[in-house]
Amino acid sequence: MADFVAPLQDLVDQFRRLPGIGGKTAVRLAFSVMEFTDEEAAAFATAILRAKKDIHLCECCCNISTENLCDICADEARDHSVICVVEDAKAVLALERVHDYRGTYHVLGGALSPMNGVGPERLHIRELLSRLSDTTVQEVIVATNPTVEGEATAMYLSRLLKPMNITVSRLAYGIPVGGDLEYADEVTLHRALEGRRPI
Amino acid sequence: MADFVAPLQDLVDQFRRLPGIGGKTAVRLAFSVMEFTDEEAAAFATAILRAKKDIHLCECCCNISTENLCDICADEARDHSVICVVEDAKAVLALERVHDYRGTYHVLGGALSPMNGVGPERLHIRELLSRLSDTTVQEVIVATNPTVEGEATAMYLSRLLKPMNITVSRLAYGIPVGGDLEYADEVTLHRALEGRRPI
Repeated sequence: MADFVAPLQDLVDQFRRLPGIGGKTAVRLAFSVMEFTDEEAAAFATAILRAKKDIHLCECCCNISTENLCDICADEARDHSVICVVEDAKAVLALERVHDYRGTYHVLGGALSPMNGVGPERLHIRELLSRLSDTTVQEVIVATNPTVEGEATAMYLSRLLKPMNITVSRLAYGIPVGGDLEYADEVTLHRALEGRRPI
Repeated sequence: MADFVAPLQDLVDQFRRLPGIGGKTAVRLAFSVMEFTDEEAAAFATAILRAKKDIHLCECCCNISTENLCDICADEARDHSVICVVEDAKAVLALERVHDYRGTYHVLGGALSPMNGVGPERLHIRELLSRLSDTTVQEVIVATNPTVEGEATAMYLSRLLKPMNITVSRLAYGIPVGGDLEYADEVTLHRALEGRRPI
């Protein structure tokens, strides 16, 4: 007996396929599932299947949605002249939590990363361009992550969109609120100085 | 939109119920499931349901098993006169990896922990006693973990079994092989000295 009994080993192997879950954690999770009631296990299994079956991308902004159009794109009260371009659905959720932004979003589904073979054709950039040609969009806020890939994507988009006579902006860089100058890295401090504003 | 769309939020909530999985990890795992193919998602869901449905406890040793008797209890070639008492199925697997032990096991399903309301009646001790009355068991090796709970359980078992004229032994304590005396804790060193053997 080198392994657990087959059904348990199977479950361990399934957990191991998830990102950031190693062998020991997979065993711990599989054992905890065995302690579920039948109803709990069924609910877990159903949630996995439903997440795959019921969720697809919004036809307009490529955000995850259960309908053809996501709640935000379908909302007439939102300002459809502003599009905030983000890398993934998690960023949409983060921005929505602020309750400040009333425009729409466009989810790229990642960032340019030639090293990993992610070129513009792998992102939802074509869908963004078709939105820009159809509607009366006035501003595109590029809110990709402040990483090398996110920066490259922002640069690529700004070059692509500038000729279309659309305002292209980028989220402000600077020291995070509640942060301490002492612990801020040099690049962030440099950007904070560069982006200083009169008070 | 405070949450993700319902099917995704559902899956996030399911992952959060697993031990050691916090909010951010649950979101990461749920998103990775969404990137599964349909077949992969189905395999994951099936593995969960099968682990619940097909696995039960061995009638004899209370280890996890797909049959009435687990492979070890059903194996005629094993020495049924020795029983190694462990806390859980993971310990059985660890001991089996050594390929040294040819006896059988008994899985308690935990350790005594009055603080958490785990008394002797919550462990598979009754099943152990019935095995001892039926068969010609000569030795019980208590291999509960070297924790406070494991020690208490070992003490309880030894008091219970000694009057039955059965040899009760405990795994040796000492410095782990490959370890460094410098980093060994005092209690372990004390036990290592106490358990010294002539060479």
